[in-house]
This record gives sequence, structure tokens and C-alpha cells, in this order.
Amino acid sequence: MERAWRGFAIIYASKKEIAERLCEEIKKRETPCSLFSYKEANFKNIWKCYDGIIFAMALSGAVRTICKYAQSKDKDPPVLAIDDEGKFVIPILGAHWGANEYAEEIAKLLGSIPVITTASELSNVTSVEEFARLVNCKILNVENVVKVTSALLRGEEVCVKGLKKLPNVKGKYKIGDNCKYFIVVGEEDREEADNVVYLKPLKLSIGVGSKIEADEKTIEEAILFALNKINADISQVEVISSVREKVGKVAERLGVKFRLISLEEVNSFNDECLSPQSQKLKELGIKNVAEACALISAGKNAKLILRKIPYKGEVTVSIASIGE
Amino acid sequence: MERAWRGFAIIYASKKEIAERLCEEIKKRETPCSLFSYKEANFKNIWKCYDGIIFAMALSGAVRTICKYAQSKDKDPPVLAIDDEGKFVIPILGAHWGANEYAEEIAKLLGSIPVITTASELSNVTSVEEFARLVNCKILNVENVVKVTSALLRGEEVCVKGLKKLPNVKGKYKIGDNCKYFIVVGEEDREEADNVVYLKPLKLSIGVGSKIEADEKTIEEAILFALNKINADISQVEVISSVREKVGKVAERLGVKFRLISLEEVNSFNDECLSPQSQKLKELGIKNVAEACALISAGKNAKLILRKIPYKGEVTVSIASIGE
Repeated sequence: MERAWRGFAIIYASKKEIAERLCEEIKKRETPCSLFSYKEANFKNIWKCYDGIIFAMALSGAVRTICKYAQSKDKDPPVLAIDDEGKFVIPILGAHWGANEYAEEIAKLLGSIPVITTASELSNVTSVEEFARLVNCKILNVENVVKVTSALLRGEEVCVKGLKKLPNVKGKYKIGDNCKYFIVVGEEDREEADNVVYLKPLKLSIGVGSKIEADEKTIEEAILFALNKINADISQVEVISSVREKVGKVAERLGVKFRLISLEEVNSFNDECLSPQSQKLKELGIKNVAEACALISAGKNAKLILRKIPYKGEVTVSIASIGE
Repeated sequence: MERAWRGFAIIYASKKEIAERLCEEIKKRETPCSLFSYKEANFKNIWKCYDGIIFAMALSGAVRTICKYAQSKDKDPPVLAIDDEGKFVIPILGAHWGANEYAEEIAKLLGSIPVITTASELSNVTSVEEFARLVNCKILNVENVVKVTSALLRGEEVCVKGLKKLPNVKGKYKIGDNCKYFIVVGEEDREEADNVVYLKPLKLSIGVGSKIEADEKTIEEAILFALNKINADISQVEVISSVREKVGKVAERLGVKFRLISLEEVNSFNDECLSPQSQKLKELGIKNVAEACALISAGKNAKLILRKIPYKGEVTVSIASIGE
């Protein structure tokens, strides 16, 4: 579940216990998790904003809800169900797109049975879309994606150019240039070839929330920790934002532009992908600073890449891509 | 699964083995079963014509198909999935309307794990609609059904009048008249009370297919076996039909009108609920005699009640209700 940068949404119906327990376990593994009661959940947003959806309820209820929001294999996030007693973890949609792996991991966390129903011999490769996401890139010529993913499914090699190392992927991706199919990252000149997918690195906006007592060293560590989590480095970051001036000093040291954002701006900001406020933040009357800052500075067409993750209990960091 | 008089439809995708094995096991238990390949299945008809649907394939494929055809809790038949290896049997829709029970039974047949995800403490009662079906009756005042089913769900008693014995049901149904809620069978005069559901016994049409060598005794046994299966007796039967004149003699002995139907009539007859032809029947160029005969004589608005069941390998019997 380490790839679920935008985290898991767990929706519970009648019983909250297993959902809460699972959400805590997921967070312990430095993966974001939000808990929703079925009645209050905005499924349209959840579908769009999370990398995994887990229904903690009877399968039939989960399926009837899925039927209202599911679109297609290539658009839906992995969706799973877990019963109230935590006996079964069931991948429902996206078995080969993460749901089976999530089910195996969750089953280990809770001591459940993973209900894997897909044939194990089926080839399981990282799609080109997922590859692009894992290296924080935009696909420039989507029309070639199916062709290259199909090559991977057939077991053919795909050469990656413009990256020093590969992210953790499945399928015959390799760094090199003796292949029939290619993924080319960050090249300005594009050839008119249908065996090449061109990727353009996204520019990133980092939002930081921190307690007053957090020192600069911890803040810097938190930023680098977050970047490392999404396989990116500081050179891709265009702006770091926060409501704390102290973060500005860290940004300066990292050689990145800083933007100070007011609490009022944070509190009046709205985005469909913002994490629900924790009870504590609700009581304090403040929204999620990290996500709001990342998204505000990323401007129009910003997209959440990393839902806020905590660092040492003092800092939270979120990352968004800058819209074009 | 003894109540699935209209049988199970098993739909297989890539692998046929487990579907075939399960269908054979179901038939051994005198419950009808039809096998469909995913590509050839007419899901609209299957949804309408079978008492249980089993997808023998990965859950995600089953769910995406379900999403296209599912309507609502009270309209959909129980739907289950079983993986290609027969490891899991998963009730998807209608958990409390038969799917959980079916899953437990199928799991025993195949040595699978039944993936029950509903809370076991949830009250599980036979709905008034299902009660009406089990006693082969039509509901005359549907507007009171919810009220009486709700009473059962609350654990209240419902008195049944006009039946000598109850079918196998769950919930506090009883023969008697000291209740707050009632189900009244076969009474002409109806009171304007909202605590009573009135049922009218359906008139039945029996269709018989038989090998030439089947004797009258076997044919009679087969007819009584079929009636017993659906908790009905011969007094409800208005007509018995067949392409064999010998069946007419049995009908006469049973005191029921007989209708001789020609093979041409059978072969030119069409109904969305007819079982798919077996390979053998296809080769012989004849349709399912029993179902066709039952439905032809039941006239317009006929409804299949009992999908054809074989008796001693020589006779098949099907029962339809006569339209009004």
C-alpha cells in the first residue's frame, strides 16, 4: 500500500470498530487514511480523490454503492470490502491494479482471509499510466499508452529513457535503449512514432503544516521524507508553502521559492480532495494546513499527489502537482 | 437450494470446469441448473427467470456485470460468485434473501470457503413475497406487504389462515388467528384492514416430457413429485399437457384436463424463461417439451414456477402459473 499516496478512504456502515482499527494500522505504515461514515460520505469525491476505497460493511451494500459510482476498469480506483468482523478482505474492483495486493497486506494486518478470485497466472504488470504516476509525470501522447501497455502484457521489454532509476514496478521495464517500445521522460523533441510514450515531469507544490515547536531540521527532514515517498527530488519542486514563517527558512536552504499563506486563506479554501478534518482540527476551527497550502500554491488545475502525512508528530506535509 | 424452483443460472467466463461441476451437483439435488457462457448469456432474461445466479469468474467481472442489471433489493435474485478454482463462494446480492444459504450449501458441495459478510445476528425472516411464492399464491393487496414483513422483522407473530400447514419458513409465521397481523389465503371477502395480506392460490399448468418407454405409473409419480416439490397439490392444477398421448391417461386418472400439444407447436414456441437446449436436444432439433407445454397451456401472462426437473431419467416435469 506504499504507493497509495493519496491514501485510503474507509467507509463504515453500522459498525466503526474494524474500520478504525484498519485506518490506524494503515497510518502506522505511513500511508494516509480517512474514515467516513456511510451516510456522510461523498462518494463522488472519494472515487476521484483516493488511491484505494475500502467498504467496511456487508458486500451487498458495498456492491450496490459501487454500481452507482463505478465507471470503467481504467478509471476506478481499487475497491475492497471488509466485513464487520474483519474475517474477510475482498478485492472487488481493480484486482490487478492494486486491490489484490492491498487485500493481501490488509489481511496480514488484521488476521483476515484475503478473498482473491482472479487467476494467479494472469500476467500482472504496472500499466503505463501507473508508471507515469509513480514517476510524477504527465503523459504527453495518451494515444500510444495502450500499445505500450499491451507490449508489457505480452511480456515484451519497454525501455525507459531519461530516468536514472526505475520505481518499483512489475513488467519488463528497463533503463536502456535496445527495445521495440519506449517510455521517454523529459525530452523536448518528440518523434511521430507509435511505439513511444512521452512523459513530462510534473512541477510540484509542497504544503507544510507544523506545530510551533517544530524546528527547522525536523521540517526539512519532513519535506525530504515526503519527496522520497513519491520518488521525487527537490529539483521538481517549484514552491513550498505554509502558514509558518519558519518553513520559509527551510525553503530558502533548499533553494525553493516560499509562499506564506494566511490561516484565513487556508480556512476559506475548498477542494473536493481535501481530507476530512480531524475532530481536533474541527475543534480548533482550522482546516488541513498542509493540503490546503499545497493546493493553493499549485493554482488552477492543481491535483493532490500526496495526501498529508505526519512526520515525528510535529510536521505534516502534502504535495500537489501544479496545473498547466 | 431446494426452494430455487426456477433453478440456478451459472455463468462461466474463461474456465468451464468449476461451473460444470457445480451445475451437476445442483442437479443431483433435484434443483434445476442451466449453464451459460458469459459471451452467450442473455443477462436480462437470466435476471428475470432464475432463482439464483452464480458467476463462475473473478469477482470484479461479476460485479461489473451485476451493475448493469441489478435493480433493487426486492427485485434482484440472489447473486453469487465463485472463483475459477472453487476456493471461495461469495454471496454478492440478496445475502438475507437466500444468497448466504446458497453459499453455505455450495461451499459444502465443492469444499470451498463461504464468504459470508453480513452480520449473523441480523434477523433473517421469510418475506411475505417469498411466503406467497412458497405457497404458490398471488398477493392481492401488495400495499400491506411491507407492514406485515416489518412485523416479522420486529419479531411479531403473523397468523396464517386458509392453509393446513406452513411451508418451511423463517420468522414467526403460525397457523391460527390470535395475532395482530395476518396472511389470509383463498378468501373471497376481503376486509379493508392494513394488517392483513390476502393471497389467492395460483392455478397451475403442468407440462410433461417423457421418453416413449416411460410407463403411466412413472409419469404419475413424476407429476406428484413435482407438485410436492413446490408445496402444491393436484387440486390447484388446471391442465396437464404433453406431446405424448400416454400422459393424457394419467391426467384422466388424476381428474385433470389434458391437452395434447404437437411437437411443431413446441418447437415454434418461444419464451424468455425457457431453459437453454441441451446439446442432445439441439441435435434432435427439439426444444424443452416440459417447459414449453406448461407455458403454452398456461396462456398469456404465464409464469414459469418450476423449471423442468427430471424423474428417473425418463420423465421431465415443469410447472407454470396460469395468467389472468
